Amino acid sequence: MAMAVTLPPITRTPVFPREEFEARLERVRAALSERGEDALLAFAPETLFYLTGYQTFAGRTYAALLVPSRGAPVLVLRFLESFLAALYSEVAEVMTYDDHEDPLEVTAAAVQARGFGRARVAFEEGAPGLSAAVRRRLGRLLDGVTANDGTAIVERLRRVKSPREVDHMRRAARMTEAGMRAGLEACRPGATENDVAAAAMAALVRAGSEYFPCDPIITSGYRAGIPHTSFERRRLEPGDTVLLEMTGVYGRYVAPLMRAAVLGEPSPTVRRMADLCLEGLQRAIRAVRPGATAGEVDDACRRVMEEAGVYQQFRKRTGYSVGFAFPPNWNEGHLISLRRDDPTVLEPGMVFHMPPALRDYGVSCVGFSETVLVTAQGCEVLTHFPRELAVR
Amino acid sequence: MAMAVTLPPITRTPVFPREEFEARLERVRAALSERGEDALLAFAPETLFYLTGYQTFAGRTYAALLVPSRGAPVLVLRFLESFLAALYSEVAEVMTYDDHEDPLEVTAAAVQARGFGRARVAFEEGAPGLSAAVRRRLGRLLDGVTANDGTAIVERLRRVKSPREVDHMRRAARMTEAGMRAGLEACRPGATENDVAAAAMAALVRAGSEYFPCDPIITSGYRAGIPHTSFERRRLEPGDTVLLEMTGVYGRYVAPLMRAAVLGEPSPTVRRMADLCLEGLQRAIRAVRPGATAGEVDDACRRVMEEAGVYQQFRKRTGYSVGFAFPPNWNEGHLISLRRDDPTVLEPGMVFHMPPALRDYGVSCVGFSETVLVTAQGCEVLTHFPRELAVR
Repeated sequence: MAMAVTLPPITRTPVFPREEFEARLERVRAALSERGEDALLAFAPETLFYLTGYQTFAGRTYAALLVPSRGAPVLVLRFLESFLAALYSEVAEVMTYDDHEDPLEVTAAAVQARGFGRARVAFEEGAPGLSAAVRRRLGRLLDGVTANDGTAIVERLRRVKSPREVDHMRRAARMTEAGMRAGLEACRPGATENDVAAAAMAALVRAGSEYFPCDPIITSGYRAGIPHTSFERRRLEPGDTVLLEMTGVYGRYVAPLMRAAVLGEPSPTVRRMADLCLEGLQRAIRAVRPGATAGEVDDACRRVMEEAGVYQQFRKRTGYSVGFAFPPNWNEGHLISLRRDDPTVLEPGMVFHMPPALRDYGVSCVGFSETVLVTAQGCEVLTHFPRELAVR
Repeated sequence: MAMAVTLPPITRTPVFPREEFEARLERVRAALSERGEDALLAFAPETLFYLTGYQTFAGRTYAALLVPSRGAPVLVLRFLESFLAALYSEVAEVMTYDDHEDPLEVTAAAVQARGFGRARVAFEEGAPGLSAAVRRRLGRLLDGVTANDGTAIVERLRRVKSPREVDHMRRAARMTEAGMRAGLEACRPGATENDVAAAAMAALVRAGSEYFPCDPIITSGYRAGIPHTSFERRRLEPGDTVLLEMTGVYGRYVAPLMRAAVLGEPSPTVRRMADLCLEGLQRAIRAVRPGATAGEVDDACRRVMEEAGVYQQFRKRTGYSVGFAFPPNWNEGHLISLRRDDPTVLEPGMVFHMPPALRDYGVSCVGFSETVLVTAQGCEVLTHFPRELAVR
């Protein structure tokens, strides 16, 4: 294990000042004490970033974070990853494993070294980093521990964004807008989906974006009519709709935006789809205010589709929470989804991406979105871009 | 559940002809029969793609695949995802859940409807898509099932690539080379890491690449000396090393490549790091042949570093399996890692990415890689690019 390697003094570049992370850790410690837990053992890359600032693009590399209800946290990282903790976090104690060593044994050693071998530990059971197989083996290595599911502890905190987080999202929004502008300009007959994607990506990154949690989603023609396709070399033709959805990234924070274009005059069907999406989005935005429920916001948009008789072409939730993100996507739907009957009550500081879209399945697609902040009075749209069907 | 939606006839665009997927399913069925299992229940997006062709960028959306030891497979997908099954796969039976429904109940219903409610089912327990919490709840919903860990079944098959898979990787390699050329050309004092990344991404995508499993990794100067940093707006300065690592994607198949550049004349330290990495890579390539073990290939490279007294600046495995990939990365290290003492025996058709790198931690980094196919005689380097330190 951990043979010492000396790092010269480097400029730490955490995405926030120390206080932001300290405040988060304090709230986790309070939640642990309230639940009578001695420590949280976290595995989601998102949780490690949120509580310490440590971040990596190597998303599936095993990593863990032990947060005692009293005292400083400990990171368990692959040796090669440990320098990132020095660059992005203030965590003093990092235990490492080499590529020929067993990360779970190092994790168990960390838990035991801190005196939690027979304690109550909240495991992040819902973390994508913790497969059922890994969880089982860790349970055997820590068989004296009383384990409870602690997934909700950090997920609850992440729902409401701090002013610093919102500032980062505003900066990301400016990048998003630059990318969307470049993407729409590249939409013309003869160009390929890839030409549009290349233009959008280059503009986003030149505007300062970090690597994407999800590359720009660009799909056209009949492929746009297949939900969740993205660029795959298809050549754009007159009459095509093109769907563009993307985000810039600042300090890992995002502000996604979706727009649709049509090559040439829109058909009556496409025009109607656009009008309905714009109306649904407008109604959803109007419904966003503190005290409203997630389900009510969804109702506002969905009813537009139901009343127009196009629910089958919509058939999804109205939106989801967004904040910071790592691959594979920017969607915080597991924190809050704006979906039918969801009783979650909106609070100032929550941020949602709301992308109503209508598909003529296998033929075309139109959709528009905004990233929207819940404020004390109602809401503020963070993304600033003409909200209309782009006729190219 | 699943209200019928009619899809007009669309052009199916699977990444391989039907026979490729049929052959894979046949091998899974044989493995199930051999183990005395009635079915495989898979959750990894990689497994769903490998066995059916279904693919999505929405990587964390719950999805499952039931493969009976006799009979046709069943996909369980979010409604919005189900059209992708029609576009990319031949799977006839797709059960869907809407956003306000419970995907695990639909999964349990699928298992029971096929008569496996009291059968032996191999669960993909190691899948990143299956968190410990989800696994537990699914276990309760399927409490008559005898569950075993079936993770290894598909992982073993994926280790050896078919000729069609290798063809896709060759096409990806041509894209990688275009991206690397553009990235290296953009390396000059005054440009930012983001300018380099934008140039590489745009070239990769214009050359035909699909969305990346991991965006190009571009890091410079002192940041290059921190393993696993990527572009974050830093401006390049004379004397900097720049590390570039990226892949093109064709039919989701990859062929990653790493190169290093230096701005101006390399210092003796940088020159020596480059020479050692090139020597380590060359020795590793020479060690790749059927019958060699993963550990022997690692030895060949690592010994160069040990003998030069720079192991602490290297300190990682020599490489890992690559094939197809979805975000967050292209690394198939869980299938095979070229690491110390690993007894896995190399076979024709295995493909490895081998990226030896040396870091002057917090100061600079140099590294070079190739994507290498094991052949009947020895090996073939699939990536074609000048293997040298680029002096810019």
